[in-house]
Amino acid sequence: MKVPLTIADFLDRAELVHRDTTATIDEPDQPAGAVATTTYGEMAVRARAWQAGLDALGVGGGERVAVVSHNSARLLELLHAVPASGRVCVPVNFRLSADEVSYIVEHSGASVLLVDPELKALDGISAPHRFTLGEQTETELMRFDTAPRPWSAPDEDATATINYTSGTTARPKGVRLTHRNIWLDAVTFAMHTRAWERDVYMHVLPMFHCNGWGMPYGLAGLGVPQVVLRKVDGAEILRRVRDRGVTLMCGAPAVWNTVLDAARSWEGEIPGRDEVRVVCAGAPPPSRTIARVAEELGWEFLQIYGLTETSPLLTFNRTRPQDVDLPAEERAQKLSRAGAPVVGARLRVSEDGEVLARSNVVMDGYWENPEATSDAVSDGWFRTGDGGYLDDEGHLTISDRRKDVIITGGENVSSIEVEDAVFGHPAVAEVAVIGVPHEKWGETAKAVVVKKSGVEVSEQEIIDFARERLARFKCPTSVDWSDALPRNPSGKILKKDLRAPYWEGRTRFVS
Amino acid sequence: MKVPLTIADFLDRAELVHRDTTATIDEPDQPAGAVATTTYGEMAVRARAWQAGLDALGVGGGERVAVVSHNSARLLELLHAVPASGRVCVPVNFRLSADEVSYIVEHSGASVLLVDPELKALDGISAPHRFTLGEQTETELMRFDTAPRPWSAPDEDATATINYTSGTTARPKGVRLTHRNIWLDAVTFAMHTRAWERDVYMHVLPMFHCNGWGMPYGLAGLGVPQVVLRKVDGAEILRRVRDRGVTLMCGAPAVWNTVLDAARSWEGEIPGRDEVRVVCAGAPPPSRTIARVAEELGWEFLQIYGLTETSPLLTFNRTRPQDVDLPAEERAQKLSRAGAPVVGARLRVSEDGEVLARSNVVMDGYWENPEATSDAVSDGWFRTGDGGYLDDEGHLTISDRRKDVIITGGENVSSIEVEDAVFGHPAVAEVAVIGVPHEKWGETAKAVVVKKSGVEVSEQEIIDFARERLARFKCPTSVDWSDALPRNPSGKILKKDLRAPYWEGRTRFVS
Repeated sequence: MKVPLTIADFLDRAELVHRDTTATIDEPDQPAGAVATTTYGEMAVRARAWQAGLDALGVGGGERVAVVSHNSARLLELLHAVPASGRVCVPVNFRLSADEVSYIVEHSGASVLLVDPELKALDGISAPHRFTLGEQTETELMRFDTAPRPWSAPDEDATATINYTSGTTARPKGVRLTHRNIWLDAVTFAMHTRAWERDVYMHVLPMFHCNGWGMPYGLAGLGVPQVVLRKVDGAEILRRVRDRGVTLMCGAPAVWNTVLDAARSWEGEIPGRDEVRVVCAGAPPPSRTIARVAEELGWEFLQIYGLTETSPLLTFNRTRPQDVDLPAEERAQKLSRAGAPVVGARLRVSEDGEVLARSNVVMDGYWENPEATSDAVSDGWFRTGDGGYLDDEGHLTISDRRKDVIITGGENVSSIEVEDAVFGHPAVAEVAVIGVPHEKWGETAKAVVVKKSGVEVSEQEIIDFARERLARFKCPTSVDWSDALPRNPSGKILKKDLRAPYWEGRTRFVS
Repeated sequence: MKVPLTIADFLDRAELVHRDTTATIDEPDQPAGAVATTTYGEMAVRARAWQAGLDALGVGGGERVAVVSHNSARLLELLHAVPASGRVCVPVNFRLSADEVSYIVEHSGASVLLVDPELKALDGISAPHRFTLGEQTETELMRFDTAPRPWSAPDEDATATINYTSGTTARPKGVRLTHRNIWLDAVTFAMHTRAWERDVYMHVLPMFHCNGWGMPYGLAGLGVPQVVLRKVDGAEILRRVRDRGVTLMCGAPAVWNTVLDAARSWEGEIPGRDEVRVVCAGAPPPSRTIARVAEELGWEFLQIYGLTETSPLLTFNRTRPQDVDLPAEERAQKLSRAGAPVVGARLRVSEDGEVLARSNVVMDGYWENPEATSDAVSDGWFRTGDGGYLDDEGHLTISDRRKDVIITGGENVSSIEVEDAVFGHPAVAEVAVIGVPHEKWGETAKAVVVKKSGVEVSEQEIIDFARERLARFKCPTSVDWSDALPRNPSGKILKKDLRAPYWEGRTRFVS
């Protein structure tokens, strides 16, 4: 018997088996007004109210529902409710500028746009249906009095979500993840992290990021309570671990640095010792940070690797049984690798050093961009754009980022997009944007600028100019001046040469 | 991207990631000669040697390879090697009589038959290719010098194994499990049991039983060492838990009774306290047995429910977080339910009380038996043949077995098959075979016989007559005499009435 693998499986089971279990503990300080702590039974009722509301609006199967929101119980509900009804959820990065969000709403052809009330800058963006999350959606959209229309033809190959991600192009691309992609990611992720009903998860990672890495699905299926954190704050993370009994979190390296900082001035015992495990993705942090998570917090550190295009789980790194007794530094060193391919994923490295992946978690393609899709996926392999190698323990290490991507604080930034913005400044003759190491954010963008002759411009002017046009996290935090950019014979800028001095003495050119 | 979910994923990953991890610790007393303890790297090499051997024999894709063996490293290897090459593995119950095995070999159309050397009674059964497991397969079949031909077109819907099972018919039916069935069963099972690389598994459950419930696959994928136990023996189980650090086992209720018995005369501390978890299927044992596993062994008890037709995992029962502090007897009582539907499984109870299941683990159908298939699967639901109910915690309890099936010591027995055999005795006018409670085996078969007038026959004669024709575990262990069997108006024997006096005072009519 074949039953379509759809994300409805997770909340459906939660309602049946974990009906009275706490499902969401919303951020108390939601400007939209927090959703009262719900059980999985109540969450399922609310999911149906969202669906019935979309029915009433006349939003059909396959239509896109865009949501721009910080972490919130409502976003979590929508990640379930929208795809389970055969529609497509488009969770959008709330840090983007109005212009950037507008592009995504338009490009995805969203019928419905749902926006956090704090994001006033997005007021001008329209869509056929637009609601502010909170009172308006509770009273004008959600329908608690009607049963929703069931999805007419559940299909595991249907698109469940479109997640826009910065890549090598000026504009973000929409990654189409199918129900099958997400289902297999969620179950494999839960299996490798050993998630179970006695865990308490906290959404530290923004949920718009590849649907919270698929965690909202697997965790619902297993009946794990989900605590919502709206804004990353080290001391607040420690407080909630203590007060809510949190045992599992995901986040970028910068998050764990923030917690380590907060721990220094924390009074009393660090909560969750020997109970909390944290999953880190993005470029692995320095092994010293990993060792400190174990030593100073007593939390287990797990490293994964993946991209939005891969749902994301490709690799998983937990200290192997035979390594448990190694000195702490050596263990941390081994944990700073991306990890071993998870069950069902196959990796290889191409002749020119690029990491290729083959797995059911690889996206179906980019939304309305067949060219980019065929660039990314060919002969059954997905090109990650990252350089790396597999060692004799079968573990992957990412050693270089081939794409023009900067990862800062867990966010992907397209250097080309930033170059486009800076290039608009009248004093700029040429510009290259590169990632340079940054203690807190891993990397940060630096603009290398060739000025037009006879024109003056300051570093701050360049930075401010970019900030008017781009989300703040994408903007250069420093500018270098140059007489001419290094180019290869065919005129291509040699970014590696520009980056080299900043990365001297490091074994990896990512961080 | 869609990649076929095939069972090759598991051993492939083991070879890449857990190459130097112990894969199998074979039974030292294999009459076939034990396979030396292997790593997953070596196991993968041996799997390829089996495949290359089948290539050399000219056994093509889709052809059946039948294996009749006690638990052994070789059987474990074949469960991987045969389906991963696109062929179909048919693991056969080694307790069956020559006639029964012969039927399966013939019905499945096996090209190859591999037999444990101890099973002399099967000497007369032929197949196009026949080998005795051990020296003969090592030297005459396996080919370590050639690479095997890869599976030409991997397909998740292809049949991976055919598992013959007794049901309501006189002859066993061949359950066709696809690669997708087994893949999803294995990963879901591993997720719910929280299997991981620090476990050590012991094959107590016979591997021919629904491919060891799919455990051999998930465990290989996760790099879990697998200890082989050839014959269930309580003291030996305790010794291996102690000597091998076993942490995870599956088995029928009778197994855990045997261990509890052995524990009474065990000297010193019971090994594995607070570390071992045992998974029990078949009819749940009395809650007193469950409580004793926790009290006397200190092992965690997990109950599941499923059938060969469902790969088998349909439900899972672990003490819920909110029940942890209940009195031991109450916890045991709750654990004696079949459990909650696992992620991806849906259950409902039909109007007449039959448990129906809908899941990707439900078989593709019965081998060459479309009629039985359409009886079993209709409108997207599989009829389990068992009666039961779902309680308000979403948990299933099996209360009655509707099919004419007796489960004794974890083996399914078709009462019709036993009736056919007993009916062949010249003194028998009518016979009905029913399951009655048995302290050790859960149930045992009882024949209720109406003698031909004027003929004498003893209980022992009836039992011996059956033993000449059937596997011993299927045979009646007692005979009742009757003047006439109770029948309904249309002549159907009322087995419920026959069973009633033996099950008086019990809330469930299965055990």
